Amino acid sequence: MLTQPTLLLDKSKCLANIERMALKAKNTNTILRPHFKTHQSAEIGNWFKDYEVECITVSSVKMAAYFANNGWKDITIAFPVNIREWVTINELAARINLNIAVESVESIEFLEKHLSNPVGVFIKTDTGYARTGVDAEDYEAMQALLKKLKTSKNLIFIGFLCHAGHTYKAQTKEEILKIMEESRQQLLALKTFMASDFPLIQISYGDTPSCSVGNNFDGFDEIRPGNFVFYDDMQAQIGSCNQEDIAVALACPVVAKHPNRLEVIVHGGAVHLSKDSLQLNHGPHFGTVLPLSGTNWHTNTPLGYVSKLSQEHGTIQMPQAAFDKVSIGDMLAILPVHSCLTANLLKKYLSTDGSTISMMD
Amino acid sequence: MLTQPTLLLDKSKCLANIERMALKAKNTNTILRPHFKTHQSAEIGNWFKDYEVECITVSSVKMAAYFANNGWKDITIAFPVNIREWVTINELAARINLNIAVESVESIEFLEKHLSNPVGVFIKTDTGYARTGVDAEDYEAMQALLKKLKTSKNLIFIGFLCHAGHTYKAQTKEEILKIMEESRQQLLALKTFMASDFPLIQISYGDTPSCSVGNNFDGFDEIRPGNFVFYDDMQAQIGSCNQEDIAVALACPVVAKHPNRLEVIVHGGAVHLSKDSLQLNHGPHFGTVLPLSGTNWHTNTPLGYVSKLSQEHGTIQMPQAAFDKVSIGDMLAILPVHSCLTANLLKKYLSTDGSTISMMD
Repeated sequence: MLTQPTLLLDKSKCLANIERMALKAKNTNTILRPHFKTHQSAEIGNWFKDYEVECITVSSVKMAAYFANNGWKDITIAFPVNIREWVTINELAARINLNIAVESVESIEFLEKHLSNPVGVFIKTDTGYARTGVDAEDYEAMQALLKKLKTSKNLIFIGFLCHAGHTYKAQTKEEILKIMEESRQQLLALKTFMASDFPLIQISYGDTPSCSVGNNFDGFDEIRPGNFVFYDDMQAQIGSCNQEDIAVALACPVVAKHPNRLEVIVHGGAVHLSKDSLQLNHGPHFGTVLPLSGTNWHTNTPLGYVSKLSQEHGTIQMPQAAFDKVSIGDMLAILPVHSCLTANLLKKYLSTDGSTISMMD
Repeated sequence: MLTQPTLLLDKSKCLANIERMALKAKNTNTILRPHFKTHQSAEIGNWFKDYEVECITVSSVKMAAYFANNGWKDITIAFPVNIREWVTINELAARINLNIAVESVESIEFLEKHLSNPVGVFIKTDTGYARTGVDAEDYEAMQALLKKLKTSKNLIFIGFLCHAGHTYKAQTKEEILKIMEESRQQLLALKTFMASDFPLIQISYGDTPSCSVGNNFDGFDEIRPGNFVFYDDMQAQIGSCNQEDIAVALACPVVAKHPNRLEVIVHGGAVHLSKDSLQLNHGPHFGTVLPLSGTNWHTNTPLGYVSKLSQEHGTIQMPQAAFDKVSIGDMLAILPVHSCLTANLLKKYLSTDGSTISMMD
């Protein structure tokens, strides 16, 4: 019996999500290099092998080491390289095909001096998200980096790596496709400009909204979506998935009811769901609340939404009819707004088939 | 050498925070029952023993079990009781002085049926925060609960437990004191009203802003602040502390610089700092950025603030002079907005004396 906040994982939904993306990559002759920061689990990682996935993406050196220790031989750390971790990078580069992302001359010079093993290098490229990376249209900055890489012994230039995270702010599928198209054009122009010096440039393209909504990956050698393995309320809102595709839900016990304000309090707070939220018509939204039978949740009969979170408390707003059906001691299911952060907080999954699935420490 | 995001703990600042609150409680003849959800660490818990602290507060049954297993004999779970965990509650009640918080007849009836060991009971009382608890002025609801408790064998009524969390929205110290005073008046009126049936009613009062700013605890038998052990940017903003009192900081490596927008990117994101934020004059604020030498941070020369967070990236906004001083590969210190959530994410501390301090799993 469930007694505490528990992260449930519906394996069949998860496998369907993996299969859909793997087929899409296969049909477009694109390599699927899924981002494993979402699930952070060796066991879930293994599920991808049935879909011929051999290359993965991670967001830290620590995560690269974890998956390398769990049998993965081709890993890209899609994060501006942290040069302080060069010892681990060098050690990993000795035993797997490791790729890193760079965006400064300083990092290249430092690593060239310190690494003794060859490592693949992508230039982190910004096509408009403006979080980090070199502006895709700043050819001067790109040339400065490529000049350094050209003479490097152990930094093997591979190509341009882009995460078009501005798709997360899109309101329609058309906007997502427009962002993907603009990114593609910038990346292809860059590739053409550099082609005489580097004829084998690869383009690695990321983000779950683009890869879920889009079907045309022309010009991309590989795609790196991550969140699609579970999806979440944010992706459903963006239009990347339907709520029925969401493969994780947080089971929470009801501990109090407030009839005067139609609020239900559950044990399930910021230490379970994270404070990531959506701004919807009803206000801040920290998750969709559904009925739960055993470990199965039911998307066709939503009960309400999480309107507030503190460290351990979740406040759920419900219409009267749903409120009347809920009792203290019931378990409810919450579809998280951001499944990556929720999984990172819970540190393990309860599969709907009854098994516990562990994650990276 | 620090290489990754690391939660630093300045033990001397932490001990000064504990000592200040312990003295305040002593001087006012109030019991300090600190909330241990902030640090979640047996070792840090032990530091309180030097200040004669013997009773503690936690926010979950799991946390109660952890501290009971680490030698604490008097624990209040200040969260609406989760009746699904009655087995563990019953087991803990057999070996320590365990108090729980109730706010519904249903919970009392369920526990009366299931518990075989005596447990102390507080009624969770709402003096205006409106998160959960019984309205302090709803005497009818209070009487319904007390009627049930009066005939109970194992649920021993102790008193009223209040967390005046609306102090967190206060803009001035006067507002905090006003909320504390209003809460006190409501709780004392309630106590008086019930005194003929229950002459020994205790009042347990919480929240770090009230207990930090206030000096008059008349009418309160015990205080339950938690965050004060570390404090954070939110508490400094509220006026509970100065930034120099904040005892934890997240050390983060600089991985990229963007001169055109004066932004520095660090490895240090939502999985380290949480997504809790303040809304300040400069916009959303996820932490104050300070210089770091070794494991010591310097509050008198702030470098900037964290303006955006994604899963692993932190974006820092800096004025030109500070920006020019920072290099890729440097470590910076970030004072978290909410130290409870940051500690919960990092799961361990590096003390500025060089030792590693573990936390609850």
